[in-house]
Amino acid sequence: MNKERPGPTRATVRDVAARAGVSPGTVSKALNGTGQISPTTRARIVAAAEEIDFRPNALARSVFERRSYTVGLITTDSFERFSVPVMLGAEDALGAGQMSVFLCDSRDDPIRERHYVEVLLGRRVDGFIVTGRTSNERPPLHVDRDVPVVYALTPSADPADCSVVVDDEAAGRLAGDHLIRLGRTAVGHITGPEWFDAARRRAAGLAEVLDAAGHPLLDKPWYGGWTEAWGRQATQILLRSNPDLDAIYCGSDLLARGAADALRDAGRRIPDDVALIGTDNWEYIAEGARPPLTSIDLGLGEVGRLAARRLLDAIAGQPHSGVERVACHLVARASTDESGPH
Amino acid sequence: MNKERPGPTRATVRDVAARAGVSPGTVSKALNGTGQISPTTRARIVAAAEEIDFRPNALARSVFERRSYTVGLITTDSFERFSVPVMLGAEDALGAGQMSVFLCDSRDDPIRERHYVEVLLGRRVDGFIVTGRTSNERPPLHVDRDVPVVYALTPSADPADCSVVVDDEAAGRLAGDHLIRLGRTAVGHITGPEWFDAARRRAAGLAEVLDAAGHPLLDKPWYGGWTEAWGRQATQILLRSNPDLDAIYCGSDLLARGAADALRDAGRRIPDDVALIGTDNWEYIAEGARPPLTSIDLGLGEVGRLAARRLLDAIAGQPHSGVERVACHLVARASTDESGPH
Repeated sequence: MNKERPGPTRATVRDVAARAGVSPGTVSKALNGTGQISPTTRARIVAAAEEIDFRPNALARSVFERRSYTVGLITTDSFERFSVPVMLGAEDALGAGQMSVFLCDSRDDPIRERHYVEVLLGRRVDGFIVTGRTSNERPPLHVDRDVPVVYALTPSADPADCSVVVDDEAAGRLAGDHLIRLGRTAVGHITGPEWFDAARRRAAGLAEVLDAAGHPLLDKPWYGGWTEAWGRQATQILLRSNPDLDAIYCGSDLLARGAADALRDAGRRIPDDVALIGTDNWEYIAEGARPPLTSIDLGLGEVGRLAARRLLDAIAGQPHSGVERVACHLVARASTDESGPH
Repeated sequence: MNKERPGPTRATVRDVAARAGVSPGTVSKALNGTGQISPTTRARIVAAAEEIDFRPNALARSVFERRSYTVGLITTDSFERFSVPVMLGAEDALGAGQMSVFLCDSRDDPIRERHYVEVLLGRRVDGFIVTGRTSNERPPLHVDRDVPVVYALTPSADPADCSVVVDDEAAGRLAGDHLIRLGRTAVGHITGPEWFDAARRRAAGLAEVLDAAGHPLLDKPWYGGWTEAWGRQATQILLRSNPDLDAIYCGSDLLARGAADALRDAGRRIPDDVALIGTDNWEYIAEGARPPLTSIDLGLGEVGRLAARRLLDAIAGQPHSGVERVACHLVARASTDESGPH
């Protein structure tokens, strides 16, 4: 750290006033953005401020421009593995510091969320991005000023709001298409709790494709927990009732890890006997598996990027409305590739 | 969103001036913190500002107080699993919005880092917390103003700086103590690349305890990659040269997952034949394993909390110096507990 102290030598409103040939009161007006000042004078003040290096005071600059170049990102997910990629995507789209991001972790606590909204409004953020851990709808963020809000990953319950989410049905369809193309005809599905929209939508997408191909889903979707243990247990159940099972699509990579272990324990080769697809494309988990897991990448980074672009539009006066779904894609690895390394 | 527009009705510097019975120029002086104003007048201006709800303008308030109540948190880790707990801990200690955190992801790019420092200085942050993904030293953050910096997780190469880090040697000692107490006498160690300080320190702590107990480490520390595949491979090597192996300490939970798979493939029961300890206490990974993994929790949240407290001290004029190591602790699960569920 350099020891040069800020202070006496720093440019002040008085210095700006002197340079612009106006009174400090006029600079104050400009600072407050009140209308009683001509555009020419305003421009002269801004120029003067720049000339004498008023620049470091972004606080003042933001008051000049009535913009803080700051976005509040509120998550309920403690910045866990779902909201972090969304956040990085948003940061990307906000242009590496052209807009800065204030992160707040509401920890699913409405009082904490309310508090953060107040703090961020006090800091005059230009907008909010709200994200969470599920695809289930959430109540709209209560913002008692005209500051735009975009919902990412977790949509707003108000259809007039702008929400950018994952396309969970497409994820299920992608997995089904891939398995049908591989010639699999006896497909099971293991997933998380039924009250997760994401789980139901993925199951619906998968069932749609399998039905269309004339090879309907075995049993029913096996809803349970998002854990490896459930992946193992559900695989054992599936194998008992369907000894001819030749593929499993899992609603998460952790579930698929559990399924892989149970299949190996039962003497089934992956993918020769049973092809296996996970969801999330969570690198540590998918690549560490034996064999590495084919997985559906839900495009979380793109969710964040698109949400940020929608927010920038809204800040610029062009708000969007409704739910947009971002495309997902399949990352093929050895668990479905009979020719690949195992 | 409520449609009440900000604007004409919002309190301005002129309103504050009228209420405080001073000129707008005097309010400007107070806004700029220049010295030509009596403490009494200053107090009157602050009171007037509060009375007419100048409150929403935290920007102006921060200029009043010469503090922005903002901390910049810069990571090189893309807010991955190491820096996120540090960040949450820091946020905790900064008091739920009393100080807000600006997150910047430098992505290990010095130009990006430089850019963020400039942006955050422009926003008048009160201080910086710098974090990363390894325990290896990093060059000090270049801050050309007197704004304090505290390093969390990744220490500064300058010993005069304040760094708060994990106690990796203690992690190795904890694992060794636990295994010795369980009566294990033939302990192997599998870990990440040797150029990681964390890997070398954990190995040194383990070796120290095993030597003291008269049961020195088998072979040498097996340095490799931080992957499950290396965990499997190194376990096979260890078993070949040490068929009497009765415990393995792994430098990460993923390595321990790989070790568990290789042990099971070799027909060894965990923990009856071979006790197994991981590091990180990464919940998804440690609890999903068969059996669930005993693991060393490195106290990353506490690293963040302590770093934030040190930064608050520095902002208050009481800087700390040197490297502080945060205590870690062992979380016992079935992989070392012969009486536990497997």
